[in-house]
Amino acid sequence: MDAESTDDPVFQLHRGGKMAVTSTVPLTSREDLSLAYTPGVARVCEAIAANPALVDDYTWVSHTVAVVTDGSAVLGLGNIGPRAAMPVMEGKAVLFKQFGGVDAVPICLDTQDVEAIIETVKALAPSFGGINLEDISAPRCFEIERRLDEALSIPVFHDDQHGTAIVVLAALRNAATLLERKLTDLRVVVSGAGAAGIAVTKMLIAGGVNPAEVLVVDSKGILHSDRADLSAPAAVAKAELAAQTNPHRRSGGIADALAGADVLIGVSGGEIPESAVATMASGAIVFALANPTPEVHPEIASRHAALVATGRSDFPNQINNVLAFPGIFRGALEARATRITEGMKVAAADAIANVVADNLHADAFVPSPLDPRVAPAVATAVAEAARRDGVARA
Amino acid sequence: MDAESTDDPVFQLHRGGKMAVTSTVPLTSREDLSLAYTPGVARVCEAIAANPALVDDYTWVSHTVAVVTDGSAVLGLGNIGPRAAMPVMEGKAVLFKQFGGVDAVPICLDTQDVEAIIETVKALAPSFGGINLEDISAPRCFEIERRLDEALSIPVFHDDQHGTAIVVLAALRNAATLLERKLTDLRVVVSGAGAAGIAVTKMLIAGGVNPAEVLVVDSKGILHSDRADLSAPAAVAKAELAAQTNPHRRSGGIADALAGADVLIGVSGGEIPESAVATMASGAIVFALANPTPEVHPEIASRHAALVATGRSDFPNQINNVLAFPGIFRGALEARATRITEGMKVAAADAIANVVADNLHADAFVPSPLDPRVAPAVATAVAEAARRDGVARA
Repeated sequence: MDAESTDDPVFQLHRGGKMAVTSTVPLTSREDLSLAYTPGVARVCEAIAANPALVDDYTWVSHTVAVVTDGSAVLGLGNIGPRAAMPVMEGKAVLFKQFGGVDAVPICLDTQDVEAIIETVKALAPSFGGINLEDISAPRCFEIERRLDEALSIPVFHDDQHGTAIVVLAALRNAATLLERKLTDLRVVVSGAGAAGIAVTKMLIAGGVNPAEVLVVDSKGILHSDRADLSAPAAVAKAELAAQTNPHRRSGGIADALAGADVLIGVSGGEIPESAVATMASGAIVFALANPTPEVHPEIASRHAALVATGRSDFPNQINNVLAFPGIFRGALEARATRITEGMKVAAADAIANVVADNLHADAFVPSPLDPRVAPAVATAVAEAARRDGVARA
Repeated sequence: MDAESTDDPVFQLHRGGKMAVTSTVPLTSREDLSLAYTPGVARVCEAIAANPALVDDYTWVSHTVAVVTDGSAVLGLGNIGPRAAMPVMEGKAVLFKQFGGVDAVPICLDTQDVEAIIETVKALAPSFGGINLEDISAPRCFEIERRLDEALSIPVFHDDQHGTAIVVLAALRNAATLLERKLTDLRVVVSGAGAAGIAVTKMLIAGGVNPAEVLVVDSKGILHSDRADLSAPAAVAKAELAAQTNPHRRSGGIADALAGADVLIGVSGGEIPESAVATMASGAIVFALANPTPEVHPEIASRHAALVATGRSDFPNQINNVLAFPGIFRGALEARATRITEGMKVAAADAIANVVADNLHADAFVPSPLDPRVAPAVATAVAEAARRDGVARA
């Protein structure tokens, strides 16, 4: 029997999809139609034609985001293509609405060509107030995001990179506070140098971690400037990180990196042996974020670390980017920001951390993904940062 | 004072736009999130990856249409671009939902290049169950629709052509019945050879009008095979019509065409003098569809014609394509049709006509745009025709 023909609650819930479009205006009388459609609508069109900025006032564009994927790196499933990616994009879209009040439309593209993706999103852009890129594989995601950010005057945000990175920074801030440590003093190991690992590393440095105290480890070992494989064109993002971190050009594997380290952030999915975690400094912090199987099981991590977080909902301290993206876009849209700056991301991390800062515990230093205080706090902080950084239009 | 800063009800209604996205599943508990998003959603993705047809069962794709424009021919306003077109596309989207229960997403493109539009829509296609092309100027709209129809396995429908044409055919059927005339006997003049005029002419012929009794008139006069200007590449659609109609190669202007004609269908916006209408045969039928100014005012037309229809809501017999597009896409989506055939269009026209066929009057031979019986009847007829024509997948 097929999975979908059973009474499996996941398939039952997904039947017919998870979202709908609704009208926010009445459409039941001739008068209604003459206001919302012809002939009335023509005057709104003429007003926008004369002053394009009015599109933000008189259409849904200013509260609408496209969730765009090519299906090349979906969850832990890999390159499953645009159709199989749709349930994730719909899920993302409804989370945008539930937590951020943002109307989001899933757009699954029938191309994995970088140029075609960029051209398609540029063509779509007038229809949306922002672009959330999702589940696009590295290193293609870096160029796609960079070039769209340059080309468009609306926010472009690759959530797999920055959403995760922002929540990791928020969690690390609260963890450091709880342990009475300073971010600048922590020796940090990031296991994984894909889209998330690279973004996490950059975000931690932007948030105060000392780059000289950071080691990034990929499947071939610690990134350092002498590694020959980092000269390949596809490795440019890793090469940049290698140049910025690890000034002593330490080499070796994850076990070498972890010896004496204060923080492990796993964003690789690769298993990390308990023996390596055991060599970390006392009072260590372990974030093992792979889903569904953390790099090191939280019960094992807890034997050696003072504080532990995962990506899973069934353990304490879930690091879930639903804490970030709804509020970030809500704030960026409210400020009519033209882009999302590093300052806006750091502000979002601070806001997430602050929601629970008055009441930190080892099993509650990250807010719940369902905490209704988070998105409004993030939105306010992000809008303020947009104005501070000079990218706000409102 | 700007129009939009007054208390004008049209601008008040449009503030913030006319539509929203909603979740159709609960999202308030951790259990909800684990079903609708991670980890549960991964199993739905895997099922679709293994069997792509399941995307129709477990996502919103199968009940969702993109309303795509490049803003090149919006209402009577012309080439006002994608942003100024958005209020019309939102209006269209909410009408899709209100009358057809179809979820529609407005997509306003930042390009007017034919190749770029085609590539963009092809890239978007996995996200939608159908493509409604809207307000794209002729002759570009013909190539865009034809090539997308060939390239995609979902319905592609340029509403400005076929929606109008279907409702005109429906109205003409009922008008002929009311006057006890047969479609095959009517001498028909179509004034206007843009997207709507060409589609109307083809649809009337598909529906039973004798092509030898049809004259099409553009701004330069009656189309005939000897007209030198029809050899231009951009005039290929007009040249095809000239070859199919007017076998006696009559020439001249609208007044020449109308002398003795039974039917005038105005889809040009160009004024037609009363003196020309006065020369039509007795018991004439006049559809003057330009908005907001009909080619001939209905009160003037009534002096010379037995039956009159317009595109306006403030006169009887409004020919409005909201009578067609919601039901056509509803039916095509329900049948999971791979395209929209001529048979489906004729079936839609029959269904629209039949809704009021038992109770025809000179001032009520076209159903009201608000008649709730129309879209379900059209949907049923279109789905049946899709199955008959072998394009249904369900």
